Amino acid sequence: MDCNSQSYILTITCPDTVGIVAAVSGFLRDKNYFVEESSHFGDRDTGKFFSRTRFSSNGGKWSELEFRRDFVPISAAFDMQWEVYDTARKPRAIIMVSKHDHCLNDLLYRYRTGTLCMDIPAIVSNHDELRGLAEWHGIPYHHVPVNEASKPEAEQKLLQLVKDCEADFIILARYMQVLSDSLCNKLAGQIINIHHSFLPGFKGARPYYKAHERGVKLIGATAHYVTSDLDEGPIIEQSVERVDHTHEVDDLAAVGRDVEAITLARAVKYHIEHRVFLNGLRTIVFR
Amino acid sequence: MDCNSQSYILTITCPDTVGIVAAVSGFLRDKNYFVEESSHFGDRDTGKFFSRTRFSSNGGKWSELEFRRDFVPISAAFDMQWEVYDTARKPRAIIMVSKHDHCLNDLLYRYRTGTLCMDIPAIVSNHDELRGLAEWHGIPYHHVPVNEASKPEAEQKLLQLVKDCEADFIILARYMQVLSDSLCNKLAGQIINIHHSFLPGFKGARPYYKAHERGVKLIGATAHYVTSDLDEGPIIEQSVERVDHTHEVDDLAAVGRDVEAITLARAVKYHIEHRVFLNGLRTIVFR
Amino acid sequence: MDCNSQSYILTITCPDTVGIVAAVSGFLRDKNYFVEESSHFGDRDTGKFFSRTRFSSNGGKWSELEFRRDFVPISAAFDMQWEVYDTARKPRAIIMVSKHDHCLNDLLYRYRTGTLCMDIPAIVSNHDELRGLAEWHGIPYHHVPVNEASKPEAEQKLLQLVKDCEADFIILARYMQVLSDSLCNKLAGQIINIHHSFLPGFKGARPYYKAHERGVKLIGATAHYVTSDLDEGPIIEQSVERVDHTHEVDDLAAVGRDVEAITLARAVKYHIEHRVFLNGLRTIVFR
Amino acid sequence: MDCNSQSYILTITCPDTVGIVAAVSGFLRDKNYFVEESSHFGDRDTGKFFSRTRFSSNGGKWSELEFRRDFVPISAAFDMQWEVYDTARKPRAIIMVSKHDHCLNDLLYRYRTGTLCMDIPAIVSNHDELRGLAEWHGIPYHHVPVNEASKPEAEQKLLQLVKDCEADFIILARYMQVLSDSLCNKLAGQIINIHHSFLPGFKGARPYYKAHERGVKLIGATAHYVTSDLDEGPIIEQSVERVDHTHEVDDLAAVGRDVEAITLARAVKYHIEHRVFLNGLRTIVFR
Repeated sequence: MDCNSQSYILTITCPDTVGIVAAVSGFLRDKNYFVEESSHFGDRDTGKFFSRTRFSSNGGKWSELEFRRDFVPISAAFDMQWEVYDTARKPRAIIMVSKHDHCLNDLLYRYRTGTLCMDIPAIVSNHDELRGLAEWHGIPYHHVPVNEASKPEAEQKLLQLVKDCEADFIILARYMQVLSDSLCNKLAGQIINIHHSFLPGFKGARPYYKAHERGVKLIGATAHYVTSDLDEGPIIEQSVERVDHTHEVDDLAAVGRDVEAITLARAVKYHIEHRVFLNGLRTIVFR
Repeated sequence: MDCNSQSYILTITCPDTVGIVAAVSGFLRDKNYFVEESSHFGDRDTGKFFSRTRFSSNGGKWSELEFRRDFVPISAAFDMQWEVYDTARKPRAIIMVSKHDHCLNDLLYRYRTGTLCMDIPAIVSNHDELRGLAEWHGIPYHHVPVNEASKPEAEQKLLQLVKDCEADFIILARYMQVLSDSLCNKLAGQIINIHHSFLPGFKGARPYYKAHERGVKLIGATAHYVTSDLDEGPIIEQSVERVDHTHEVDDLAAVGRDVEAITLARAVKYHIEHRVFLNGLRTIVFR
Repeated sequence: MDCNSQSYILTITCPDTVGIVAAVSGFLRDKNYFVEESSHFGDRDTGKFFSRTRFSSNGGKWSELEFRRDFVPISAAFDMQWEVYDTARKPRAIIMVSKHDHCLNDLLYRYRTGTLCMDIPAIVSNHDELRGLAEWHGIPYHHVPVNEASKPEAEQKLLQLVKDCEADFIILARYMQVLSDSLCNKLAGQIINIHHSFLPGFKGARPYYKAHERGVKLIGATAHYVTSDLDEGPIIEQSVERVDHTHEVDDLAAVGRDVEAITLARAVKYHIEHRVFLNGLRTIVFR
Repeated sequence: MDCNSQSYILTITCPDTVGIVAAVSGFLRDKNYFVEESSHFGDRDTGKFFSRTRFSSNGGKWSELEFRRDFVPISAAFDMQWEVYDTARKPRAIIMVSKHDHCLNDLLYRYRTGTLCMDIPAIVSNHDELRGLAEWHGIPYHHVPVNEASKPEAEQKLLQLVKDCEADFIILARYMQVLSDSLCNKLAGQIINIHHSFLPGFKGARPYYKAHERGVKLIGATAHYVTSDLDEGPIIEQSVERVDHTHEVDDLAAVGRDVEAITLARAVKYHIEHRVFLNGLRTIVFR
């Protein structure tokens, strides 16, 4: 799927019962939409049903307004939380970084080459170091220093930027500041963080140092939604790489940079393709 | 899913068009069946649509006869090749081996512990070495020697055994004889072989020797359906493992045994759960 | 390397300094030994040096007594902890299990086929279920029930068995009892456990349940030496496998069984080939 | 190891016999050099011995001239091919590309951040598209168009550039032109290519297309030294990634880009750290 393909994505979460897929697919057929991809999952634990359908208009005319209006009876009958997305409108991400640029560099490459179909209206950093990289990609760079005292003000600026940029979500690409509970709650499910360990191992600061001390044989990275509970948010993607006794802390960090970058890139891809669903503290990811 | 769960699996292959899922899911809803799992795939290259649905009777009574009768209008409308399976009837596999027993041992362990929900009415070998292992698991062992002259007769015995055992498919768990074209064609899509290389690399005999000679850094295994074109049948599953310059041919084979066993076990699991669909020379595997 | 190859393994731990390898390799050369494999590692953190050398007698006669006597000046000069092993004497392992037999089955297969060059003089279990499997492999099975009250007595029996069998080490192949601190200390570095999570995540009981609750995207297994600090012993080997939202707890356990078995088998292999060195709470593994 | 660490690397290839390590390590001890890392391998097939030692001068003064002079008796005694490298002089690579920039982008990032300790005096391309990327990194970009007629002239320019830049080796980072036999032979062991398949599968053109047609379940990449025999040169590194039936050719290519970049980066790292030894058509890689 390239960034210019024209299709629509319908996402649904509702209580599981008989007839959901029949109702939805019947609706799409009656509208003469062609289903390109569909994934469904009923979770026995929570009794919830999750569904993602990508469809095209099959040559016909698309009206989001009409779709939204006509789908109401079905969504009401099954008590659905749902959304429909037009792929022609790319999701808009604000990327936040500090000084480490491996994840930023990777995301910008995928953005530049159309591997990640999103727009990046702003890069925000508490340092000024990565301005050159941002600007080479033609993306406005906002240097917003943060200390204990200025954090509320900095977060206020961020929220204003989200609004001004019409941003849909935020990517913490190794942003080394903890966000306030209030911000986490306000943007629940809209902030993706990359943590440089295989969670739940090595939460908090200096995970490579801890990994070295513990003598693990694999190091990992975890992309997750940010919640007010640090490093406890719903996991979207994880990867690991093999290491051994010859790896000092810096070597673990070097190996880890590749793992972090690819893990975050995958999570962002799943998110912008609307493949991720929240299921309590866990996620459904229709890959 | 354990071996005693009671459900039904509907598999469909047909030309892709609008309304297939709507028709099928509408049918299941009208029968009050509860969909436990469903996967669909439309292949743009071939224009074919593939679908697997696992459903339960939702407390109601199940009649296969009735299902088959009532589904006919839908299958006819969409020109479907389809089948419905009752999980209460376990698939029946004949396992064929020569002298290497790592795959056999692995399959028998999974069979014995209910990880692979299948019956094994017979083990067939061109050698007598593995009789003890078979008999400890309570499975009849058929020693059928094969040479150039006796191959037609041996294959005749096999076909008779397939019939007598009501076997659904055959697993070549490192059976070191090439089957005749006639047998391959007769049992197309019903024979799974494990080849000890990452196909299409190192087709034919002595793949570990060739892998060593070529100096590859990963060795692999490939589970595929057998066709009359040696090692060219549709691939079901592949895995690899890292090796290096310290591995001599025997070491490659030792590492490879683990890869072969797990690759074959996965392929067999996909097959008996009716997750594999043929798509020309390729497969669809709904994992 | 097969189980009948005749060679000797010299293992050394000592403070790192100039000239260790020169001294050791000079000694081996002067004795006309042929070095088949050698690995060295100096740890900057601890200032310790670790070395493993596999050599053969190059057609000459081998006398362990003479080797031990003649090596003393070198070992003294560098303050070495060292050992030399004759591969003709296979390490002897007692395997302990409860009811899960996937690791036991895997170890016995590798034992039976010579993939793991060790002897297994006894299998000990707090249940009687796995007697048949042990006996089919011709290995004495000791049923030693354990409860809170009888644990000291049971551990006494185990220690006696270690002595009677001349066992070199113990493998906890999913033995579901916690050993006493006293036993852990007495057999430090001689007990290998397989824990069914990627440590340090999910220590203690029910790791697959916890993994499911946390929604991790990979599950793992960790083979480590047992210490009195539960699941905190030095890690020998770890592996992971990908899972997703469709995996319920039982599915995680099923995937995990394969990971556990291979992880434990690798750790045991490294141990019996004298590839593992303790370095505080970490290990050096010369693979 | 960062790019500024000061150490020396000694690489040796010679016929295997008793006493090589003793002689070399004795020599280094007598010079009071401290061994930081050492790896040895004797290949039974070819009877060749390979050794790499990284050492530091232990506070003393380093004279390459003196080292080279004093080492001669040892190298002569064992008929060694050998080299010693001062890490203060970074290896110099010319990178060649066409239009695909994923490998180039990855290499430049690692170069810029000191993950790959090398200098890049020139980027050469048969197209002009990637000039901006090169120049942002401050690297001279040479646009050398190639067609059948101009190839000899283009290769002449390349050889001149190698000379002018004092380049040590060439990286073909998806350079889509076949080099002449003459050039391959002239620069044997000095050109690293990334091929976008798991060799020996899918040699030659359009490997992702062929991989899709064959329905493989993993796609891979292979970094190898270039020889006049296309895609048959000694393999340095290989990696794979899982794909499935939903991946069309473009999707395979997208997944493959990540595999190619990481595989090539690893091979280059091994090469510039002098970890790779040629052993006929295979390589030894001391990782």
